[in-house]
Amino acid sequence: MRWPEGFRSAGVHAGIKKDGALDLGMILCARPAVWAGTFTKNAAAAACVGWSRGRLGTPLRAVVVNSGNANACTGNPGREAVTRTAEAVAAAIGCKPEEIGIASTGPIGVPLDVSPVVAAIPQALAGLDDDVESFASSIMTTDTRIKVAEARAGGARVVGVAKGAAMLAPNMATMLAFLATDAGIAGAELQEVLDRSVARSFDRISVDACESTNDSVFCLASGLVDVSRDDLSGAVESVCTSLARAMVEDAEGASKVVAIRVLGATSEEGAVSLGRAAASSTLWRAAAHGSDPNWGRILAALGSVDRSIDLHGVDLAIAGVTVFRGGEPVEGALSGAAEGMAAGEFEVVCTVGAGPGTATILTSDLSPDYVKLNAEGST
Amino acid sequence: MRWPEGFRSAGVHAGIKKDGALDLGMILCARPAVWAGTFTKNAAAAACVGWSRGRLGTPLRAVVVNSGNANACTGNPGREAVTRTAEAVAAAIGCKPEEIGIASTGPIGVPLDVSPVVAAIPQALAGLDDDVESFASSIMTTDTRIKVAEARAGGARVVGVAKGAAMLAPNMATMLAFLATDAGIAGAELQEVLDRSVARSFDRISVDACESTNDSVFCLASGLVDVSRDDLSGAVESVCTSLARAMVEDAEGASKVVAIRVLGATSEEGAVSLGRAAASSTLWRAAAHGSDPNWGRILAALGSVDRSIDLHGVDLAIAGVTVFRGGEPVEGALSGAAEGMAAGEFEVVCTVGAGPGTATILTSDLSPDYVKLNAEGST
Repeated sequence: MRWPEGFRSAGVHAGIKKDGALDLGMILCARPAVWAGTFTKNAAAAACVGWSRGRLGTPLRAVVVNSGNANACTGNPGREAVTRTAEAVAAAIGCKPEEIGIASTGPIGVPLDVSPVVAAIPQALAGLDDDVESFASSIMTTDTRIKVAEARAGGARVVGVAKGAAMLAPNMATMLAFLATDAGIAGAELQEVLDRSVARSFDRISVDACESTNDSVFCLASGLVDVSRDDLSGAVESVCTSLARAMVEDAEGASKVVAIRVLGATSEEGAVSLGRAAASSTLWRAAAHGSDPNWGRILAALGSVDRSIDLHGVDLAIAGVTVFRGGEPVEGALSGAAEGMAAGEFEVVCTVGAGPGTATILTSDLSPDYVKLNAEGST
Repeated sequence: MRWPEGFRSAGVHAGIKKDGALDLGMILCARPAVWAGTFTKNAAAAACVGWSRGRLGTPLRAVVVNSGNANACTGNPGREAVTRTAEAVAAAIGCKPEEIGIASTGPIGVPLDVSPVVAAIPQALAGLDDDVESFASSIMTTDTRIKVAEARAGGARVVGVAKGAAMLAPNMATMLAFLATDAGIAGAELQEVLDRSVARSFDRISVDACESTNDSVFCLASGLVDVSRDDLSGAVESVCTSLARAMVEDAEGASKVVAIRVLGATSEEGAVSLGRAAASSTLWRAAAHGSDPNWGRILAALGSVDRSIDLHGVDLAIAGVTVFRGGEPVEGALSGAAEGMAAGEFEVVCTVGAGPGTATILTSDLSPDYVKLNAEGST
């Protein structure tokens, strides 16, 4: 996939990852790009998050991303590593450090040696082209494949690249995403467009309900093509939604995608909160892995966040089979539901009342492999 | 272990469990017993929870418990099963149905056939004695051993029996516990004593952060021995704390007990909320299983619930080894921490500031076995 006009990127091996894989990515903007960003709200946010958030309002010339080290909870040395990276890139391309955005992903709390990052910058600059692929590879951690998406916005394009895999929770999931468009739009408007899109995409996935220290979404605009705000908004949301789904599909240890659809809540916010509760239930996610239609675990999760739910008004369907209605189990429904759950993707529809609030939260099953992967000595 | 004077119990096989294990327990009070109770607040609470909660204020003659079926989300037939059980026991011992407390545990949403329960009542009555053991066995589900505890309250005794294993979360954890004492105390006072003890014991354990539909704690008093309220309060809290710890030790798939101790929070409530966040982190619990001192996952959990935490004031120690201090990782600390984590039990001390709030939350590691156990077709 090609970046929209005005952007090039590269991915190189700087030496952070010990296995020789790509670990340093750069997106270069042909001219200062208007941008918007959303970042983790975690109090233990990484040094790069503080840096990049501080750049909001200033057009960017480049975004630099390392994988293999989150540079989170690393104190002053961590913050210095960010500043040195920005300074080195700025010197190499001829701009101010404040025009460089930075993101990191990888283990938390490991001091980041910035020397190999700085040393690899010339190589990254030399490798720039308009193909997204090497950049998309360079930001991966436990992802098994690159995540890219694109959409048209009138005569403009929106292209996005992301990484996910784990620590994926509401409040933006643990993830990095980089969107670029050749559309023209003011920074404040772009921020509104991005906020809305993130709320309906990355904020509606949950893999392990663990919020990360490094969540960052960048959306850069080169401003070459005039488009309507509505067209751009639709395209940005479409790209965010595709990338969010790709993260769940490639979640650590996941073997299936489960869409929790909540209908009839008192508000959209209420529907999101109920959906998140079901999507975060360790017990239900384990049952999903084994294709066990243990719907009681869903009701227990819903009933733990909304204590006013009336079971008589609740209707629960798994993979198209209604298993609970009018306050009682539906007889003989389990085998059909179990069959549907064996597919690579299925939907749980929770009708919780007669209100107008609806939302869909995407999650994955919880497998023994997820636990094994995360029990390994990664530090 | 023997019940205090005024109580006898039995455990029999009624036929709910298919493997022939004990599945019906009864505690008989020699005379109407003053009692207190705490129950799940889940909107999908089981029929027995609604029944027993409604009995608060009325002295009880017996408590009847079945395992192998939660009788939750089972609608009107579920409520009728509870009433029929109470009526049958009341008829057999010569009291009103309203003097019978009821609890259930097992899979949610499976219709409960009450006939074998009713048919087994004479056998239960015939088997009554003052030993707690068969009752303690009869309430087990995936527990691997019985859970009993006792404490002295002046000249009186407090004896408790519990079951746990999974769906253990704050707000009482998923669990049943039955305490009996020969102490004399008014019902309202006993409720205060129990509420306080539950808040500091069962409310401070978390296995999978899943709240159950059936949580119930009964505390019965035969009133034969005069004791001070302080003595009784201490003994009840001691028994609750022992039983809560036994639940975590025997949690599904668990290989170790992890105590999350929070110090320096702004309030006790704040400390509990931070401790619960760390104890509920799927990622941290997986790391705990593999003895990986991945403390970044703890900080990320703390930072997700209290966004005002200042990392510079945070001190983190795992198994006695300080791994994070003054906003930065402590060099060379990981191998010592990993060694300490390999033990069957270890402590994580999170000093989050200089406030007066402290709390300890007990949890277990998350193992592939937990996932396997809960992915099996239990419905």
